[in-house]
Order: sequence, then structure tokens, then C-alpha cells
Amino acid sequence: MAEKHTILTKWKGGLAFETNLDGHVIRVDAPVEKGGQNSAPGPKRLMMVALSGCTGMDVVSLLNKMRVDFDKVEIEVQGDVTEEHPMHYFKMHVIYYVYGKNIPLEKVQKAVQKSEDLYCGVRAAYAKGMEMSSEIRIVES
Amino acid sequence: MAEKHTILTKWKGGLAFETNLDGHVIRVDAPVEKGGQNSAPGPKRLMMVALSGCTGMDVVSLLNKMRVDFDKVEIEVQGDVTEEHPMHYFKMHVIYYVYGKNIPLEKVQKAVQKSEDLYCGVRAAYAKGMEMSSEIRIVES
Repeated sequence: MAEKHTILTKWKGGLAFETNLDGHVIRVDAPVEKGGQNSAPGPKRLMMVALSGCTGMDVVSLLNKMRVDFDKVEIEVQGDVTEEHPMHYFKMHVIYYVYGKNIPLEKVQKAVQKSEDLYCGVRAAYAKGMEMSSEIRIVES
Repeated sequence: MAEKHTILTKWKGGLAFETNLDGHVIRVDAPVEKGGQNSAPGPKRLMMVALSGCTGMDVVSLLNKMRVDFDKVEIEVQGDVTEEHPMHYFKMHVIYYVYGKNIPLEKVQKAVQKSEDLYCGVRAAYAKGMEMSSEIRIVES
């Protein structure tokens, strides 16, 4: 039996909404120029946050399992937005920055590939409707 | 020239990550049983929060423009997850709850349809790779 996830999002006045995810409240709002109060981020970029968090957790876990000693990891996501309405992401590019001394590129490649092929459900969902690409940048620190 | 959005997500130790979106910090983490500290929601359900917030803002804005007087609005999103890896949403169902006295159903239908067809970029992106459906429930309050 396939799993089903359910969320309930409540209107909080103006254009603000809040969702309680097992005790963690996520708020979204619109910027002032679009009628909101800018009390929280807009919803669209949460799509990119979902992706960076999902694949970031995979990569950090896998690097730990491979005993790769890194100083920090950063994930950049670039999303291309259509010009026609509804304006939406049609392409996302992920850049994995791994900082450290003598980081083995092939192990980072393996971790990223495992995340993309086996673990990251957010990427898998997006890949069905969007062009997805990625690159790795090792930074000596 | 199409717009491009960029985010930078930073590893915060363990399996936690933070993204600063124009001053609003979004944190994600894994639950304890998956090696995290449950300091924030997991990333996957942010996909549903992006959808509920996006379409919720549209619907509230449009109801206001149509001078529909409502007490509250809630958006439920149900996401069906694949059994195979990477486990990901393949279907989302949105339930729009509009609470108030004598809410005109046809105006809510019009607002939801406009969000789905013209405004909500999150739904448009998901609809390219997922099955999307919705319903409206008017609640007399």
C-alpha cells in the first residue's frame, strides 16, 4: 500500500498562510508589491528549498558513510521560470559545493549520483516534468 | 528574457540545512530515526506547502476581488508517494475549504479555476509530471 502524506494549510489574514508539519510551522506570504506583508518567503521558491534539502541530506549522509572528511557543504539551485502564465519552473540546475582538504571528487560524484538515481524523491518528482541538471564544485579550504 | 531564481542552501551540521530567502530563513532537518535531530520539517512536504501557499494566495486574492465575504480558508493537500525508490509524489489532491455564511460556490469555483489555469506556477510545474486534482468544500460558519 503506497504511503499518503496530508498537510493542512491555514489562512492567517492578508496573503499569509501557515502549515503545521508535526509541530514545525512553515509560513508563507507575498511581498508588499503583490499585496502581502513580506512576513515570510513566497511559496514558489520553497520548491527549490525542498530539492536542496532533500539531495543535501543524501549527499552529507553518503559522504559520512564513505568517510569523506569535509568542512562544509552548500547547495545552490537555479530555477528557470517560463515567460508565459502560469509562470513556473521548467528547468532546475543544482550546484554541489563541497569544501575541505583533498576532497575526493569521485566519491562526491558517487554520492550525488546515488541521491539523483536512488534516494531523492523531490528530484524524482521534478524530473518527470522538468529538465534537471547538476554539477559539483570542490573548494579547497 | 526568462527569469531565473537562485537559492543557496547551507549545511548546518547533522542533516540540517538552512536557506535564506531574502531575509527569511527556512530550515529543514531529518527525523531522529533517519539520523537527524527533528529541529525542522523534512524537505519533501515543502513541495506540498509550496502548492497550498501558491494556490491559497490566488484564491484569497480572487475572492477578495469578487467581494466574497469569507471567515476563513484552509487548504488541504494529499500527496500519494510511490512505493519504488526514489519514493516521490506522483499525485496530489487539493481540497479548498471556504468557511462563511452563504458563500457562493460558483465564485469559489471560478477563483480555483483561475488559480489552476492562469496563476499558480507551483501547480503548473507539478502538473507536467504528476496527476493533479482538486475539490471545493463550502462550510457554513
